[in-house]
Amino acid sequence: MENLLSKINNPTDLRKLPENQLPQLAQELRNFIIDIISKKEGHLGASLGVVELTIALHYVFNTPEDLLVWDVGHQAYGHKILTERRDIFHTNRALHGISGFPRREESEYDAFGVGHSSTSISAALGMALASQLKGEVDKQHIAVIGDASIASGMAFEGLNHTGVTDANLLVILNDNAIGIDPSIGALKNYLTSVKEGKNPKQNNIIKSLNFDYSGPIDGHDLPKLLSELERLKKVKGPKFLHVITTKGKGLQLAEEDQVKYHAPGKFDAETGKIHPKDESHLPPKFQDVFGHTLVELAGKNEKIIGITPAMPTGSSMKYMMEAFPKRAFDVGIAEQHAVTLAAGMATQGMVVFCNIYSTFLQRAYDQVIHDVALQNLPVIFCLDRAGLVGEDGATHHGVFDIAYLNCIPNLIIAAPKDEVELRNLMFTASEGLNHPIAIRYPRGRGENVDWQQPFEKIEIGKITQLQKGTKVAVLSTGTIGNNVTKALAETENSSLFSHYHFPFVKPLDIKEISKIIDSHDYIITVEDGVITGGFGEQINSIVVRQHLQKPIKNLGISDSFIEHGTVFELQQICKIDVTNLIQLFNTFQHD
Amino acid sequence: MENLLSKINNPTDLRKLPENQLPQLAQELRNFIIDIISKKEGHLGASLGVVELTIALHYVFNTPEDLLVWDVGHQAYGHKILTERRDIFHTNRALHGISGFPRREESEYDAFGVGHSSTSISAALGMALASQLKGEVDKQHIAVIGDASIASGMAFEGLNHTGVTDANLLVILNDNAIGIDPSIGALKNYLTSVKEGKNPKQNNIIKSLNFDYSGPIDGHDLPKLLSELERLKKVKGPKFLHVITTKGKGLQLAEEDQVKYHAPGKFDAETGKIHPKDESHLPPKFQDVFGHTLVELAGKNEKIIGITPAMPTGSSMKYMMEAFPKRAFDVGIAEQHAVTLAAGMATQGMVVFCNIYSTFLQRAYDQVIHDVALQNLPVIFCLDRAGLVGEDGATHHGVFDIAYLNCIPNLIIAAPKDEVELRNLMFTASEGLNHPIAIRYPRGRGENVDWQQPFEKIEIGKITQLQKGTKVAVLSTGTIGNNVTKALAETENSSLFSHYHFPFVKPLDIKEISKIIDSHDYIITVEDGVITGGFGEQINSIVVRQHLQKPIKNLGISDSFIEHGTVFELQQICKIDVTNLIQLFNTFQHD
Repeated sequence: MENLLSKINNPTDLRKLPENQLPQLAQELRNFIIDIISKKEGHLGASLGVVELTIALHYVFNTPEDLLVWDVGHQAYGHKILTERRDIFHTNRALHGISGFPRREESEYDAFGVGHSSTSISAALGMALASQLKGEVDKQHIAVIGDASIASGMAFEGLNHTGVTDANLLVILNDNAIGIDPSIGALKNYLTSVKEGKNPKQNNIIKSLNFDYSGPIDGHDLPKLLSELERLKKVKGPKFLHVITTKGKGLQLAEEDQVKYHAPGKFDAETGKIHPKDESHLPPKFQDVFGHTLVELAGKNEKIIGITPAMPTGSSMKYMMEAFPKRAFDVGIAEQHAVTLAAGMATQGMVVFCNIYSTFLQRAYDQVIHDVALQNLPVIFCLDRAGLVGEDGATHHGVFDIAYLNCIPNLIIAAPKDEVELRNLMFTASEGLNHPIAIRYPRGRGENVDWQQPFEKIEIGKITQLQKGTKVAVLSTGTIGNNVTKALAETENSSLFSHYHFPFVKPLDIKEISKIIDSHDYIITVEDGVITGGFGEQINSIVVRQHLQKPIKNLGISDSFIEHGTVFELQQICKIDVTNLIQLFNTFQHD
Repeated sequence: MENLLSKINNPTDLRKLPENQLPQLAQELRNFIIDIISKKEGHLGASLGVVELTIALHYVFNTPEDLLVWDVGHQAYGHKILTERRDIFHTNRALHGISGFPRREESEYDAFGVGHSSTSISAALGMALASQLKGEVDKQHIAVIGDASIASGMAFEGLNHTGVTDANLLVILNDNAIGIDPSIGALKNYLTSVKEGKNPKQNNIIKSLNFDYSGPIDGHDLPKLLSELERLKKVKGPKFLHVITTKGKGLQLAEEDQVKYHAPGKFDAETGKIHPKDESHLPPKFQDVFGHTLVELAGKNEKIIGITPAMPTGSSMKYMMEAFPKRAFDVGIAEQHAVTLAAGMATQGMVVFCNIYSTFLQRAYDQVIHDVALQNLPVIFCLDRAGLVGEDGATHHGVFDIAYLNCIPNLIIAAPKDEVELRNLMFTASEGLNHPIAIRYPRGRGENVDWQQPFEKIEIGKITQLQKGTKVAVLSTGTIGNNVTKALAETENSSLFSHYHFPFVKPLDIKEISKIIDSHDYIITVEDGVITGGFGEQINSIVVRQHLQKPIKNLGISDSFIEHGTVFELQQICKIDVTNLIQLFNTFQHD
């Protein structure tokens, strides 16, 4: 059979196909995604689930004039392949390659950059209202949002506003009953009951919010999708199509284990079998150190509670959910709720570990300030994926946290150097602090295989001297300090260098820091977050306020958004990799 | 008739009254609130609306063991008066007096500190889940939330989670169809239809989210409230009571003009008439400068759009809503949606003014980073109530904005010194920047009666020298610079002082700043935000990085939460009032 996909460079080509060829195209697109992702890695399941929907949308609507917004964007691989990026799709998530998420800079077909969840309705409504004002009455605006994302507060705000406009907006609910982990919440249960025919269509929640509701329909049935989208194209005002899909559709193993196949790593394109890796000799992932340590602590203290907003697998909260199901809460994509829920529990004496990816805590910034810090409630925030996260790119780097948390009174900020310190910080926090604390740690593996050491309390604000030298003091916080250690091991005049690790970014021991600065000629600060407002700038201010008059160099993320690539590549770009550090260190000579 | 209220110090006293005396108590409580607020000012309408509900809650439930959370807290005056604060209620919102909002530090009856909207369900659910784990099976947990607040995304997240728990939580919807301004949104329309009997109870949104729904009932009918609350006390699991109230109830003028009587200022306690003030000779409020200027600009450019999340009156967006109703959007208490809606509009070439109080932008922090700045969309944020806001206190000060915005790439941050500069910054932004901009300005009045000057463009990053001196450079940003000007006018050796005003906190002109620092012996920075991560610390870092080695003093808000009081009193506490500045300046002498 003639290959169709290879001749489709964009939706204009797609629209030339007769309808009866679209199922074949769907098969080819699915195979194309599986083939490339099996070798190059990436997010698999979500895109497989929307192959038919993607084709139908570009077939029926006049993209890019009609504006199509994908929520989160894990599911947009098919969209990318059909919109002029087929031949570069193999560069997905690689440095200077295409992004794993829709991105305005990348293509006119990417109407809105995404990555964090639940933005699509608001963004698409903004576009629809703008079109209305510009008199573009026939322009279509479509937001495709999953059932996990639509349960987030922001999506509700978008629906609530849309329902009182006459904006030409189509919201498509891609209901596969799962985000990265299975969706949760009362709305999810409700949607399930709708799917099962237990709720009358005409009196449902969406209808109550003043949408023209249709569905649920089978999202893998192309003729049905086409006819329904054609119909909806002619309906004015807010409308809502409920589409049922299967995450991982078309690859049996991916359908069967949807959590694992969300982003399975390399696998066999034929069988779907994930290539086995012997990882037993590797140091653990930080997330697992968190997860297992939490279980260990929770076993000793029944007041300990775990909260995750929709990341039980990603954050390894799943271990706590298995061990102590009553004390572990997956609240769905609801960071705001997660934080204030934690605050409420803390008022009743609970010891709450609230685990949120650094980049997603941005969603709950007000709650950290207003509900936790202002009331000085000792909630323990564990910020996973802090620093550069690699292939997920600009939307997901956890590089702002030190800066945005630094200014919050009452809050302790910690950044362990390794797994053992993460454990000890968690232990210290669980033993009772009079303040909230945020413990930030990176994505990926640590350095110690032998990490399950007995717990030790860490003094708040302590500074650890890792190396003593004569001239230059290197001040680092968090795991990036390991780059410093490695660099110093290869630096020519390593004896010139002292190296101090700061497990705490806040509070800072001004007296001790002053002594350090005073006893060296030159200061270098290193962090894997933004320099502006970060750790290094706090050191700068101490230098100025204590009249210490020593030259300082601040290393970290400069004032720009960092793209995707491996963590190593991105560290190179930011000049905080080992080689760049060695080069810098080698510029210092004995007098 | 014997006065009942004077004998009720706490709910234990209240519960000793026979039910038939409660209506009299309600009348007395209402009069007490009116009497004090008429003289001392404060939030009137909300508390008048819940007098009966407040009495009923404390009568039926065993507070403070049962945990009662008021959303926002504008409506909690009656609660405060009945819970041991009757005799100090006249200190409401005054320095060292009681807070205008519930506050854990203030009373064991204030189960959760509030101020920002829509936190109550999450907080109370946290308490309820904690009680469950502690085996406190009979403990009651109540969240009282208004219809404006429940439409915010965070409240939805709380409901969505609650519905899949068996937590003993009662959510009471205080439905008066208004927040500060009338409620908006599809949910509001839906609730109205329920009130009007147009929706069958048993198939409503709340019921769909798995709550035991009851109501709507008349919130001023004490016997009905009592019997319904008694009934609900025995119902386990999540339950929801829909109560209809009238904001301003019992004071005719307050019922008739609910927006004005939200916080009416001083008024006649008998008639309700607001004491007339001739304010025609006063400089305008900054919010009005914003509001009128926006209309002026929008008249010339049809791409200009205004967005407010539920603050049309407070931010004066109401003028744009009157003049250009199709281009002005009140989206309800939905800051997250407001920001991403603005981003969506900006992708279509609209010039969007998104006006949010500084403290409430914390709610949309992720959207500013992820949806606006990352895509470099030129949204114009106008941050009202920046800096110290006075009587609203710790929950409402807009003091974190410079710090949390500074670290965001692509974003311009501006802080005008006066009304004319605010206008010119708005004009400059509306003429097209290639970046988003946040313009922060304070609550209250400016200094210029004659503010409607012709528009002038302001060069991004420019610095204005206001006074030239020989020794000390004072660097200020925003309106706090006027305190510097006034202080310098009364400083003994004023000729020692240069004064530079920074209309832009970001970007900073490093070359120009270096020159300034280099040509003075001592530097003082002044801002009305937190010092940590703020404007002054950016200057510190320039000093360090440019090896300028000059002593610096940073003035601003130290690393603690600031309470309530007049702006003047709070400036004194922070030592950024005129008198403290004079004292500091007078310590500098000619050599």
